[in-house]
Amino acid sequence: MNTFPSWKDKALFTPGPLTTSATVKQAMLRDLGSRDTEFIDIIHDVRRRLVALCADPQEYTAVLMPGSGTFGVEATLSSVIPPEGKLLILINGAYGSRIHKIADVQRIPNTKLVYAENTQPDPAELEAALDSDKSITHVAVVHSETTTGILNPIETYGKIVKDHHCMYIVDAMSSFGAYPIDMKACGIDYLISSANKCIEGVPGFSFILARTAALKATHGYARTLSLDLLAQWEGLEGDGQFRFTPPTHVVLAFHQALLELEQEGGIEARGARYRQNYEITLNAMQTLGFQPYVEESKRGYIITSFYYPKHPNFSFQVFYKRLSDKGHIIYPGKLSHADCFRIGHIGRLNAADVNALMSAVAETLQEMHVEILEKVEA
Amino acid sequence: MNTFPSWKDKALFTPGPLTTSATVKQAMLRDLGSRDTEFIDIIHDVRRRLVALCADPQEYTAVLMPGSGTFGVEATLSSVIPPEGKLLILINGAYGSRIHKIADVQRIPNTKLVYAENTQPDPAELEAALDSDKSITHVAVVHSETTTGILNPIETYGKIVKDHHCMYIVDAMSSFGAYPIDMKACGIDYLISSANKCIEGVPGFSFILARTAALKATHGYARTLSLDLLAQWEGLEGDGQFRFTPPTHVVLAFHQALLELEQEGGIEARGARYRQNYEITLNAMQTLGFQPYVEESKRGYIITSFYYPKHPNFSFQVFYKRLSDKGHIIYPGKLSHADCFRIGHIGRLNAADVNALMSAVAETLQEMHVEILEKVEA
Repeated sequence: MNTFPSWKDKALFTPGPLTTSATVKQAMLRDLGSRDTEFIDIIHDVRRRLVALCADPQEYTAVLMPGSGTFGVEATLSSVIPPEGKLLILINGAYGSRIHKIADVQRIPNTKLVYAENTQPDPAELEAALDSDKSITHVAVVHSETTTGILNPIETYGKIVKDHHCMYIVDAMSSFGAYPIDMKACGIDYLISSANKCIEGVPGFSFILARTAALKATHGYARTLSLDLLAQWEGLEGDGQFRFTPPTHVVLAFHQALLELEQEGGIEARGARYRQNYEITLNAMQTLGFQPYVEESKRGYIITSFYYPKHPNFSFQVFYKRLSDKGHIIYPGKLSHADCFRIGHIGRLNAADVNALMSAVAETLQEMHVEILEKVEA
Repeated sequence: MNTFPSWKDKALFTPGPLTTSATVKQAMLRDLGSRDTEFIDIIHDVRRRLVALCADPQEYTAVLMPGSGTFGVEATLSSVIPPEGKLLILINGAYGSRIHKIADVQRIPNTKLVYAENTQPDPAELEAALDSDKSITHVAVVHSETTTGILNPIETYGKIVKDHHCMYIVDAMSSFGAYPIDMKACGIDYLISSANKCIEGVPGFSFILARTAALKATHGYARTLSLDLLAQWEGLEGDGQFRFTPPTHVVLAFHQALLELEQEGGIEARGARYRQNYEITLNAMQTLGFQPYVEESKRGYIITSFYYPKHPNFSFQVFYKRLSDKGHIIYPGKLSHADCFRIGHIGRLNAADVNALMSAVAETLQEMHVEILEKVEA
């Protein structure tokens, strides 16, 4: 039985698109000319605010790129690695694998270090790889692997990458805005994230934070026109415009989202709210008998993977549908070797929303006659 | 003096982003899960409605691709032309040149026939080119060249392309939804347009209408991951989802826009409204002494280029700014060899809006002490 009113949106406990504030969405109720000064001023302010979140504007810059986060990752890889370059990818989940797939499709020479999805890439192995293969010019890693919710130590890797004079590319898609990141301290040359993650905008573009000197040295490397990172930056720095039609409404929403991030108290305050969402979820889920997939020391507070309970009455499809009918959208798993589902902790959701989800989970287990007695083996 | 109230949006007489209806924008006031059934159903209905506008759903299909229209063009070129293929491009404006630029960046072997911006590509020269170079496998042309507003005879070219057993790619960015197009009659294998043009949605994705059998035969051709047209189609046909995060809000707006296109009476009724906007504009502008750049028989009713008046007091920057301050956004020119500006006729604008613009143009000329007496030579 669908008990959720049709006039209200369901709460999205997903990795994005997320629940956003009403005011972020209302910012889209305008049609601005993409080449008019009012819109150009907004683009400028968006770029300025993005850099201010993680770096010195004298040394770093921001580029907005239409499309999903994957478009931003492909724009970066296909634009900043020279023909004679070689990319090392640290992989412990689907998004690391996607970087590898992009490199292959773009015919970028590459090598990889692959780890289990509940294991962080080993810094010693990164060091050994860079020591043994001097042709490697770029290293890429995912910060928060949305596949599992595992958090990778990007600063540790960064020091090794910089010691070896390589460029460092970090996919911070689902962590940027939720975890403080100091690009310089981490040695990051290119950081990629997306409008619909922890800044709490709506989907439609990705953004790349780049060390300006590194980006400026990439002339002639771009392998596509649409995703040409340097050309897009040159357009934004030149007349202040996107080269091609920007998603004006989505940019307006993102600008409002950046203002609301500031109003909330910045990344620390937002991270604290997400962490609280995570802790409420974890405690309640464990009380109900659910087991998280990633061990605690490696877990982030962006999204958590839980094993399916080992009970004959449990069906994820039924569980998902019943929660959805109660107004809560959770997320399926994406693991190669374990049956899991995921609950996100990000977006415009607070303790009350999470408590409501947890009550609905308890109720749904009762309806399904699922009692979780036996612990799942990790 | 800015006399336009700050709470109202200016009317966009541009090639897009356009003025859209309030209800189209209001459709974005929701956060839907991108993998939830409600959103998947909407994607399905959007694709079904797009195909129904121009082709038999048994033979043709629709793919939505994040990014601007250029992303859709690059997705098509980089995904459907085999490594041993060769593209002939008919060029009479900036958007034809952009197709050429994409082919070069993507290292797709290509050749071109280039014409003046006020001249249509010559069908006899197309025929001769295809007769003399049997290695050409694909032909691409822009339907309505937004550079000038010239309309190219895509059906005439299509018959020649099909007689030579080539694939036919049409960039119908600014014409689709305003001019009836029968894909089969025109022999079009791939047609590209964008959400924020004559369907009157907001910007954020492009769409490709494809002959299904042709698209299905392109396995292994894609040169990027993000813009892989066949993979995107396989995802939409499979679980009904985008492969990567879709611009959910923009898709909701587009769905509403398709419903409103139907309510207006479909493409014919919409084309009639645009034609009326064009005719009011042309008559009023000519009465004021402005000269259109393209001759009448080649002119479309999407956007019109007008020569700058030959008067010492005329400055486009001042003219633009004063019109903007009165609530009307016009568009600069994009011509290589002539000083022109452009006025668009598309978007949610009607005779009253156009008359208001024309009054503002007359008033602004008086303010600027510009009297157009001398006719400009074409």
